[in-house]
Amino acid sequence: MVNQDILRILKSNLEHVSGEEISSGLGISRAAIWKHIQELKDLGYDIAAVPHLGYKLLSSPDKLLPWEIKHNLKNRLIARNIYYYESLPSTMDKAAEFVSSNAPEGTLIIAEGQTKGRGRMGRAWVSPKYKGIYFSLIIKPKILPQQAPVLTLISAVAICRALKQQLGIEFQIKWPNDILVNNKKIAGILTELSAEMDIVHAIIIGAGINVNNTEASLPDGGSSLKEITGQKINRLSILQSILRCFEKEYLQFLEQGVELTLSDWRHFSLTLGRRVKLNTNDKRHQIIGEAVDIDSEGGLLVRLDSGLTERVMAGDIIHCKR
Amino acid sequence: MVNQDILRILKSNLEHVSGEEISSGLGISRAAIWKHIQELKDLGYDIAAVPHLGYKLLSSPDKLLPWEIKHNLKNRLIARNIYYYESLPSTMDKAAEFVSSNAPEGTLIIAEGQTKGRGRMGRAWVSPKYKGIYFSLIIKPKILPQQAPVLTLISAVAICRALKQQLGIEFQIKWPNDILVNNKKIAGILTELSAEMDIVHAIIIGAGINVNNTEASLPDGGSSLKEITGQKINRLSILQSILRCFEKEYLQFLEQGVELTLSDWRHFSLTLGRRVKLNTNDKRHQIIGEAVDIDSEGGLLVRLDSGLTERVMAGDIIHCKR
Repeated sequence: MVNQDILRILKSNLEHVSGEEISSGLGISRAAIWKHIQELKDLGYDIAAVPHLGYKLLSSPDKLLPWEIKHNLKNRLIARNIYYYESLPSTMDKAAEFVSSNAPEGTLIIAEGQTKGRGRMGRAWVSPKYKGIYFSLIIKPKILPQQAPVLTLISAVAICRALKQQLGIEFQIKWPNDILVNNKKIAGILTELSAEMDIVHAIIIGAGINVNNTEASLPDGGSSLKEITGQKINRLSILQSILRCFEKEYLQFLEQGVELTLSDWRHFSLTLGRRVKLNTNDKRHQIIGEAVDIDSEGGLLVRLDSGLTERVMAGDIIHCKR
Repeated sequence: MVNQDILRILKSNLEHVSGEEISSGLGISRAAIWKHIQELKDLGYDIAAVPHLGYKLLSSPDKLLPWEIKHNLKNRLIARNIYYYESLPSTMDKAAEFVSSNAPEGTLIIAEGQTKGRGRMGRAWVSPKYKGIYFSLIIKPKILPQQAPVLTLISAVAICRALKQQLGIEFQIKWPNDILVNNKKIAGILTELSAEMDIVHAIIIGAGINVNNTEASLPDGGSSLKEITGQKINRLSILQSILRCFEKEYLQFLEQGVELTLSDWRHFSLTLGRRVKLNTNDKRHQIIGEAVDIDSEGGLLVRLDSGLTERVMAGDIIHCKR
């Protein structure tokens, strides 16, 4: 905690801060300050110490440290608890453990890298350390299990909106859970549910975002924010922006219902209006038609060539060539 | 295992079995047999030992021991693994732990008593030791989360069918999860879900059945099989019958789809055709009308007085007086 207090003081001063000032501000000895400054340096903070002038923060490490995430975040619910790991097999599995031990809504699990990162249906998510953003978020909306897919929509909207704010680029959502730009996959969302038939106990939203990866290191069809923009991207700002946008979209959903979510989702959708092909995993037949809308439970409405409209809740979608 | 082998031999003989016969049959010493017989007596088996004649099983304890459940069960999936506890806070919580550690489909958790037995929406289920049947069953159907409520229907049908077979009495299902006779609640079902948006990971079906309870010890409106029939009921036979009926209904659903389940459910339904009142927990309004049918996702269709039909997925139902 003292480390964070020192950081706060250093960050609020553009110039050097004397050891004496920190010492009297925090009520600890100058020797103690020196020790804490060493700890911060070990975490990767570049702090200059100039005789007679004092300390100055030159740069922060490229890490998603909890106090950095919370710094100026100004959320009241999302990410109020943060658990940080250098590496995890999967943030989803860790989040499921936290759900079992009844972690509160808004708990965020973040890992700098995942050794067994996963996407939908057990597929792998390439998660090299410090390259991407990998998190799982625990929420507990009082909704029916049937409504849970709406949280995938909310998450996708929050990611697109945050990326737009940070980078000025329009990203698009491929139903149900992929974030694309120029038809390349930048991010994926995985939503898991624990529920009674009447009521959701917890939803875990997982996200993997390719930030500073090279395209060559990613699966075919994938890209990263760095490849798209041509420059190294600050992961922390992106993550904070996503968490802020998520909170806004989520509270809007809880307070005003699903309609605004759907309207936001339609705005970012790449799928609506396209001719699509689906191999459903609950039915044996293939569905081909035009994706015409999304419904209040996150189902995709596809108008078949016969004129009938089919509602699809699951499966892999292929956008047919225009 | 030797205990169970000895039990098998004793059960297959109506008369005494000599120590020598058991000894040669199992390839262990007569002293060892004596030791195992003592262990069985400690478990509550009444075994007579007559000089020159040998051993005879007089009675088995009133316990739901795993080898007793499996004896002549003849299921291939349901209850192939059984975990038995004298007492648990809740079989549901224990089952959730087994799901986390990836227990296979068909795993059954049974407790002779529960200290924190629960029903829907966190309500208590009175679970005195040796009086009722309290179990949780882990299944892993490859279905959409939306279809999970069908498993509540299957469970309710299995319990009604088993009770009919064992006791010759028609029990009825009050939507969504209560088993009644003469309008008194005999059993309840609690269904919990862990899932991705596309696919169910596991469903835990919990059941509490009042067997040898006195009506005075139960909440208002509850009764027990003993009160209904006027005699003490063998819990083991009831449980085995439920497990057999569940397997049959469940495999039928997996192989042939939901239609036969719905038709079975309609047969046992107390709710269909009744005027009902519902306080939904997802909407603020009250629904009043006639319950006309159940749909393929377990939703109750209620024809309102306006002529419109509303689909209800959750909530507490009140059957209006005829």
